Amino acid sequence: MEVYLDNNATSPISEKVAEAIKDSFAYYANPSSVHSLGIRVRNFMDDARNKVALALGVSKEEIIFTSGGTESDNLAILGSLKKTSKKHIVTSLVEHHAVLNLFKQLEKEGYEVTYLPVDKDGIVDLDSLSDCLRPDTALVSIMYANNETGAIQPIEKAVQIVKNMSEKIIFHTDAVQAFGKLPLSLRSIPIDMASVSAHKINGPKGVGALYVRKGLKIMPLFRGGHHEYGMRPGTENIMGIAGFGAASDEAVENLSSSIEKYTFLKKRLWEGIYKTIPRVLLNGGLDKTLPNTLNVSFTNIEGESIIIMLDLEGIAVSSGSACTSGSLESSHVLSAMGVPAAAAQGSIRFSFGRYNTEEEVDYVLEKLPPIVSRLRAMSPLEK
Amino acid sequence: MEVYLDNNATSPISEKVAEAIKDSFAYYANPSSVHSLGIRVRNFMDDARNKVALALGVSKEEIIFTSGGTESDNLAILGSLKKTSKKHIVTSLVEHHAVLNLFKQLEKEGYEVTYLPVDKDGIVDLDSLSDCLRPDTALVSIMYANNETGAIQPIEKAVQIVKNMSEKIIFHTDAVQAFGKLPLSLRSIPIDMASVSAHKINGPKGVGALYVRKGLKIMPLFRGGHHEYGMRPGTENIMGIAGFGAASDEAVENLSSSIEKYTFLKKRLWEGIYKTIPRVLLNGGLDKTLPNTLNVSFTNIEGESIIIMLDLEGIAVSSGSACTSGSLESSHVLSAMGVPAAAAQGSIRFSFGRYNTEEEVDYVLEKLPPIVSRLRAMSPLEK
Repeated sequence: MEVYLDNNATSPISEKVAEAIKDSFAYYANPSSVHSLGIRVRNFMDDARNKVALALGVSKEEIIFTSGGTESDNLAILGSLKKTSKKHIVTSLVEHHAVLNLFKQLEKEGYEVTYLPVDKDGIVDLDSLSDCLRPDTALVSIMYANNETGAIQPIEKAVQIVKNMSEKIIFHTDAVQAFGKLPLSLRSIPIDMASVSAHKINGPKGVGALYVRKGLKIMPLFRGGHHEYGMRPGTENIMGIAGFGAASDEAVENLSSSIEKYTFLKKRLWEGIYKTIPRVLLNGGLDKTLPNTLNVSFTNIEGESIIIMLDLEGIAVSSGSACTSGSLESSHVLSAMGVPAAAAQGSIRFSFGRYNTEEEVDYVLEKLPPIVSRLRAMSPLEK
Repeated sequence: MEVYLDNNATSPISEKVAEAIKDSFAYYANPSSVHSLGIRVRNFMDDARNKVALALGVSKEEIIFTSGGTESDNLAILGSLKKTSKKHIVTSLVEHHAVLNLFKQLEKEGYEVTYLPVDKDGIVDLDSLSDCLRPDTALVSIMYANNETGAIQPIEKAVQIVKNMSEKIIFHTDAVQAFGKLPLSLRSIPIDMASVSAHKINGPKGVGALYVRKGLKIMPLFRGGHHEYGMRPGTENIMGIAGFGAASDEAVENLSSSIEKYTFLKKRLWEGIYKTIPRVLLNGGLDKTLPNTLNVSFTNIEGESIIIMLDLEGIAVSSGSACTSGSLESSHVLSAMGVPAAAAQGSIRFSFGRYNTEEEVDYVLEKLPPIVSRLRAMSPLEK
């Protein structure tokens, strides 16, 4: 049995996405070309742009295609900071490395950074946000939902706090994990920019988008032609964009049934784990997290060992984010939540996707308890 | 009849590339993941990396995947400049906008830039290169072959001049147009970095690579995870990379037959034009240019009008680069070559690709002369 429970790392492309990609092969000209073959491709691309925009509740002129979530985050943050001389920037301690490592770099380059703390469930502290804002605050970047725990941040309230302080402070959110798992209507809140990625919603890897609200101009990360409203040069990834359009369509169409299914599977998995395995901790709380994400600590054992043992049974899960796997550092997210090291080290993220079933959950519940027992029996941390 | 003669703008994906893309759908996990599904994708990606490397005559550890030629150029130039405090940089007047506009931006930011002139055939002046090098020269970036005229630059000699001055001056080349049209063996010359793109060699748009010779470390353009040897963060574009691998394989396999075919078609087209249309100029010379590229000026008329009239007959060509089409500025490349304005304005680039035939050339030779006559009859510039 092959059970893929690592959908927050990436997700398989759907049949409709595969079809859209194959359809794109016929649109082979350069969308910047003057001739009618070029115009055809431009229209084909704009159709996909419209689908992504609709899924986010914005208009297509507000969508800039990028190579993925990481580039979108960097473009949003660097692109807006280049337009101001203000030097105070704000983020949270639990961001994805695309944001967090950029802020660390900016700190080295002379920016003053406030890293907002989170509570035990991983929710950003809004009082700290209110308190830290200053006349020289340029930008606030807080993720919509966390990739490791699924913790859903109070983005609307955060935006309100920031915009009450000053309309001019740019608010960006990394919405990569929220897209397709929560209803998003970006235009209805005064948010300035939001990053999304295709491959987390059953679209292809290597394509993402940045929502930039109408009227806001940011500087490109790199130079070249006048593509994407002058904000992102380079011939557009037509094949990826076509897939992203189809995936966005489906994400909206399936949203309520997905949420229902994920909620059911997650509850079933957590209850099964809780009943059969002693000394487990739920990281993030069942209701304050994305419906598809369950992060559990199995105390006194290594997450990496659990992953390997589950892998032998055909079950794919992860500990924390894929981007840092292979490194031995423990999760900065769990650490910010105050999870003790002995628990954080043994944490596993189960993340559901479109193709998971109840039977798969039951299979995990059959395989997991003996693995945890065996690993604990060998652990020097167990008495 | 649909005749696509705009292959320097972009090229249709081949059947083998389409197959490789479809095959990639089965490799759906994240290549950074620890589990065996992740390892499978990593290996699949490395297989493609090896194909790109082989086609360039380098090893796979020297290939960094990017979102395309524009990003590769920017990564090479900005990534190496961030590692030095030297402030003199050198390029040519005929570069692609991905390089030229970046240099203009760097000039604004305090770099001292030497723009090397070219001769009437668009070949960079090597004496000017020798003369401009200084102890504080950080980097030289000269394209391998020009996108508009196909002019092939004396890259080996240029590298030699630079490295004789100092091993430490970084030499980068934009080899986007040369790849698949000239034999490339980057390891055999002491070049430091080279940019290539998949969509110019019948691969997909939205994926490219930067060759970074072993031992050289550059800074990433943006921050995130530890992908691509720490030089390019973001989940890799597996589908695009698979297509790029297949396209690279084919480019090498077909190289000599492609060169032969392009040379034949180009000669036939030029001779046909020269015989039937008065007052035409060949921009770049037949033998000093890429075998697939023919740039011709039809004096006293607008290139844009020719494009539109040819388009009505199903023939797709361009004037200059696709990236600046739509804008009314005339070509910076032809202007640097000293082509008079009345000729530069009426220049058309015919660029051949894998699927062009002799019949298509004959079709163009049938349709083009009356179009030029008609446009000239309406032109106020004609007496």
